[in-house]
Amino acid sequence: MISGKQTWIFETPPTIISTGVVGGPFEELGNIPNDFDYFYSDQWMDEKSFELAHQHMIEDASHYAIEKANLDISDIQFFLHGDLINQLTPSSFAAKNLAIPYLGLFSACATSMEGLALASLIINQMNASYILTGAASHNSAVERQFRYPTEYGSQKPDTSQWTVTGAGVAILSSQGSGPKVTSATIGKVVDRQLKDPFNMGGAMAPAAFDTITRHLKDRKLDSNYYDYIITGDLAMIGRDLCLDLFKQNGIDIDSERFIDCGLTIYKPDQPIFAGASGPACSAIVTYGHFINKLRNGECNRILVVATGALLSPLTVQQKQTIPCIAHAVSIENM
Amino acid sequence: MISGKQTWIFETPPTIISTGVVGGPFEELGNIPNDFDYFYSDQWMDEKSFELAHQHMIEDASHYAIEKANLDISDIQFFLHGDLINQLTPSSFAAKNLAIPYLGLFSACATSMEGLALASLIINQMNASYILTGAASHNSAVERQFRYPTEYGSQKPDTSQWTVTGAGVAILSSQGSGPKVTSATIGKVVDRQLKDPFNMGGAMAPAAFDTITRHLKDRKLDSNYYDYIITGDLAMIGRDLCLDLFKQNGIDIDSERFIDCGLTIYKPDQPIFAGASGPACSAIVTYGHFINKLRNGECNRILVVATGALLSPLTVQQKQTIPCIAHAVSIENM
Repeated sequence: MISGKQTWIFETPPTIISTGVVGGPFEELGNIPNDFDYFYSDQWMDEKSFELAHQHMIEDASHYAIEKANLDISDIQFFLHGDLINQLTPSSFAAKNLAIPYLGLFSACATSMEGLALASLIINQMNASYILTGAASHNSAVERQFRYPTEYGSQKPDTSQWTVTGAGVAILSSQGSGPKVTSATIGKVVDRQLKDPFNMGGAMAPAAFDTITRHLKDRKLDSNYYDYIITGDLAMIGRDLCLDLFKQNGIDIDSERFIDCGLTIYKPDQPIFAGASGPACSAIVTYGHFINKLRNGECNRILVVATGALLSPLTVQQKQTIPCIAHAVSIENM
Repeated sequence: MISGKQTWIFETPPTIISTGVVGGPFEELGNIPNDFDYFYSDQWMDEKSFELAHQHMIEDASHYAIEKANLDISDIQFFLHGDLINQLTPSSFAAKNLAIPYLGLFSACATSMEGLALASLIINQMNASYILTGAASHNSAVERQFRYPTEYGSQKPDTSQWTVTGAGVAILSSQGSGPKVTSATIGKVVDRQLKDPFNMGGAMAPAAFDTITRHLKDRKLDSNYYDYIITGDLAMIGRDLCLDLFKQNGIDIDSERFIDCGLTIYKPDQPIFAGASGPACSAIVTYGHFINKLRNGECNRILVVATGALLSPLTVQQKQTIPCIAHAVSIENM
């Protein structure tokens, strides 16, 4: 059922029965190492290119999730995945090796929640048994595609963000135990005419604000309904800007329970500029850190609002503005 | 309901109430000009870059579809779209201007049917009123991204294909009159270890074969059930190869009713090498040519099998094989 304008309500909420989360060596030094299933010792993951390493992580995260659910790979009916790399080759090449019917998705760093929303729809509607969905990013692959090769040693401003190396996936089922996906709000593209590709958090904040307020309105909920409202990768600047937007619009948001995944993964002294980013950012923190919190009963209701900047190296070169999107999914213990 | 392994059955089949199809000057010289709503007089569409022209076409096709359905843009609840360009910027920037909640999709040239399958699911499940979905490509934008700038004047072998300039979209509704979407088969990624980026039809044929045979098996249908089985852009070489695969596996397919969109758009004397390709190829021929045939009663049941080669310039440079995918959607008069 559609509630309000943009929100899907799942009447028989799918269960997140298992997750798989992997990361690189820099992530292992971070704030939430216990929420990962595996860390690689370098950025190459025994592969010949960063893109192959990126693909490798998606496959490994998927295998962890399948193993933890005591399933066989042939039990998984559909695979919904995306990443930032041109033509989504890490996701598509992983889909080849996993050999699961595949739907490629792209909402930049908001892809994790696009996948969770659509996977929930398929479970809810088609009575599918098991669906695998997630998102991934690889710092070195993203740096060489979107910016300068790291060998350049080029400087970045403090407003820039550090792309997470990792992959996070979830297995959804119509049965089993675990937190449940109760609703999803599909975002509109929001563009406040910002053009600085080194301040993505600032560009994405209005999209997060738009989707969160739309979600609360569509579901007729007070923001206090959720134990946490969790944004994807607004980082320091975007988070502050988003809180300002709530304040300016008279919306009461408890800043203590307004968490950003981009400020959760790493320790404050790691050199991540304004915070973390990348499709893996929201995927890892949601499927690792917060699913564990839900399972432990440390919280019962979360709204995950993954945000994406829909720019490309070419649009930056053409000095176009940065359109952004945010998709929100609520996950609850029931 | 899932039928067999990979096929979604839509119990209350969504209706394609309207379509919008636009193309470039080369398409106007082709075989099916009457199936288009509008042709541009050049590749620039009054924009400053090919990518902006690409975006322009998506917006125009959308406006034609909305106008023909006597709707207002605010009536459309969700927009599902994709293209071949890095980070899907033409689709995402169009989504910004259309201001409709947006889900970005990527299955390369199979994106049109990924969109139609997911849009049907949303209509069927969420009781949405109107959803807009489609796919687009722009020859010059694709050439400069995937190959050499056309100013190079580089030669291509006869096995290569011509990327269509155009956009094709459909509006789906739970009500209204028109052909209905009855089922969708989500493809697996198939890789037969081919590496020639100038023979995509050949690489994609096994994926088309895999999805078509899976669809018929999942739905327990004889191939003669459909008036036409329509592949996306196998072109001459891929189509022949696909027919060979059916023959080798003892599957009866009437070659007269096995049509390829890539051999439908242009006249035989247009210099298109082995045939047409691009996400717009299946979108235009399905939403223009075949929806018109269904509406006129010239046919009643079609299976559209859009095929995509999931390579990128980087994977070609790295001499990786070309993984391919095909998604099939059945459209029927009921």
